[in-house]
Amino acid sequence: MKLRELGEFAFIDRITPGCEVGDLSHVVRGIGDDAAVVKGPTGLMVITTDMLLERVHFTRATISDRQLGYKSLAVNLSDIAAMGATPRDAFLSIAVPPSISVEELDDFYAGMKELASAAHVNLLGGDTTGSMDDLCINVVVIGSAPAEQILYRSGAREGDRIVVTGTLGDSAAGLEILLGRARTSEDLAEPLVAAHCCPDLYLEEGRILAASGAAGAAIDLSDGLASDLGHICRASGVGAVVDVESVPLSTPFKRLCQETGLDPVRLALGGGEDYRLMVTVEPARLNELRSMVADATGRELFDIGEIRSGNSIELRHSDGFTGPLDVAGWDHFKTPKTVVDEEDP
Amino acid sequence: MKLRELGEFAFIDRITPGCEVGDLSHVVRGIGDDAAVVKGPTGLMVITTDMLLERVHFTRATISDRQLGYKSLAVNLSDIAAMGATPRDAFLSIAVPPSISVEELDDFYAGMKELASAAHVNLLGGDTTGSMDDLCINVVVIGSAPAEQILYRSGAREGDRIVVTGTLGDSAAGLEILLGRARTSEDLAEPLVAAHCCPDLYLEEGRILAASGAAGAAIDLSDGLASDLGHICRASGVGAVVDVESVPLSTPFKRLCQETGLDPVRLALGGGEDYRLMVTVEPARLNELRSMVADATGRELFDIGEIRSGNSIELRHSDGFTGPLDVAGWDHFKTPKTVVDEEDP
Repeated sequence: MKLRELGEFAFIDRITPGCEVGDLSHVVRGIGDDAAVVKGPTGLMVITTDMLLERVHFTRATISDRQLGYKSLAVNLSDIAAMGATPRDAFLSIAVPPSISVEELDDFYAGMKELASAAHVNLLGGDTTGSMDDLCINVVVIGSAPAEQILYRSGAREGDRIVVTGTLGDSAAGLEILLGRARTSEDLAEPLVAAHCCPDLYLEEGRILAASGAAGAAIDLSDGLASDLGHICRASGVGAVVDVESVPLSTPFKRLCQETGLDPVRLALGGGEDYRLMVTVEPARLNELRSMVADATGRELFDIGEIRSGNSIELRHSDGFTGPLDVAGWDHFKTPKTVVDEEDP
Repeated sequence: MKLRELGEFAFIDRITPGCEVGDLSHVVRGIGDDAAVVKGPTGLMVITTDMLLERVHFTRATISDRQLGYKSLAVNLSDIAAMGATPRDAFLSIAVPPSISVEELDDFYAGMKELASAAHVNLLGGDTTGSMDDLCINVVVIGSAPAEQILYRSGAREGDRIVVTGTLGDSAAGLEILLGRARTSEDLAEPLVAAHCCPDLYLEEGRILAASGAAGAAIDLSDGLASDLGHICRASGVGAVVDVESVPLSTPFKRLCQETGLDPVRLALGGGEDYRLMVTVEPARLNELRSMVADATGRELFDIGEIRSGNSIELRHSDGFTGPLDVAGWDHFKTPKTVVDEEDP
């Protein structure tokens, strides 16, 4: 059987049995969330890892070395943010093809160190090796959080509001521009491409929501809202309804979709790599949380829907029409070649 | 400048500044040893990571999927052993090309879980993704050790004896056989190929030596004795002399070299991937340590030389002749294609 027939998430279910075969007294959460959770020197430790491969996750024609260094760390910090934790230490493994120069690698490391410095994260080690063709990057980040303040995918409760920390679809739109599939002016392209190459992070939002006691489940939007909300619903044993008109869209994103005919709903709900947080919160405390986030960060929480009983995830339009949210999210085996134009389904 | 001109170790020196930019109150050791060391819930935690790339570190023609799963974890556990620590949790990132089937991946995971179970290590997470051509594997292992019992590369002292935990060169000889560059009978090939594909581990030896208080520096022999002893000497500010006739060689290894004309000294001192431990110990306690290791594991410590002042590393022959130990070790940028026959320098 081919992996693309099975799919990424069924494969993870397949290989999970037999993984917890050591001492588990220090283990709080293993496979199945944005990060694993174990006991730390103070409170809990969270550990996450992400691999980025040339021609699968990026091409060197569509992202600069400096941006790639930034993004390789950022996608991991986003997982830490989704747990409500604070990143502490990172480890970088990098396999470098002969075509890449030392100076290009200097730029890569500069981008990573820039973000590490801004987020107060140490780079404590890793592995450097050669590769035949493709640049291959793996980053591990270890973070910490007070015990009882970690947010899991499994914490959503019926009645919770679903909030996201930023606009959706910008990254997917930026990728369309980078791949030459959408053409627009420089001033529209710039913020969308930046959203794809250097995503904003929401570490402070994650901590505030985790510490509030009012948050249920959390995840970072890496695979696309439709797919990631599915993760929360499956892990929590709940369903959800998303109000399509409430999904926050940026002005450049809306203008690009108008100009080019791109479908904003498909991009905003099915596109991946937004790296906003999606968190479910007690409805009675939503306004309080919004104020706390705005005071601390100057940014917003956007209320896009509700957790409910059952196991269906539906999209509700303002005219009352409701249908299944079936916009395909990202599956690394079923859609392995998205950044490579000619291979894209 | 090309990386192969600079070399792996100069590159690591180049990128190290600016890496410790976060809170360091929990950090004991960052870049530069077999693993990083931070404060843990009890004692210290060690963290190591290794990346294995198809066509660089292995070809699927020369290692089975099950062996590859075993080895991917083993090379990381070896780093934990070299710190004198106990492995606890592992994280696997894997990028899978479309050519690999689910059943082949099942074998890979079976091999990894077999070793995880034997070493009492949990697989707590990771990342699964697609790749275009090459299978790419990154494993992270977190271990623990009592404070003050960690072994570093920097602990060697003048007068220490240099011991290794097993025979050298078997893995390099196994690779010669796998690549078809050395032909021999099945009974000679089997143990040498096994040494390359499924290296033995020395976790118990690492712990015994670390707990004894008599060990100075330690490293695992991944790059080759010449290169790895260089790491110890540079980190410790010392020199060393290796008695060439004391280097332990297995019977199959010696017979293969006799049969094929392969140079045993070059393979044993310059070949990599033996994954034995090399540890420097107080000479007065060597016999005691040997007994402790033999009682606990049934295995030996082999005394191969001495740490001395200065910064040279020399090879001494039984006739008294001494020369520099200049057998090239493994540098991932300068010799990036060793497993690919036609590309080998």
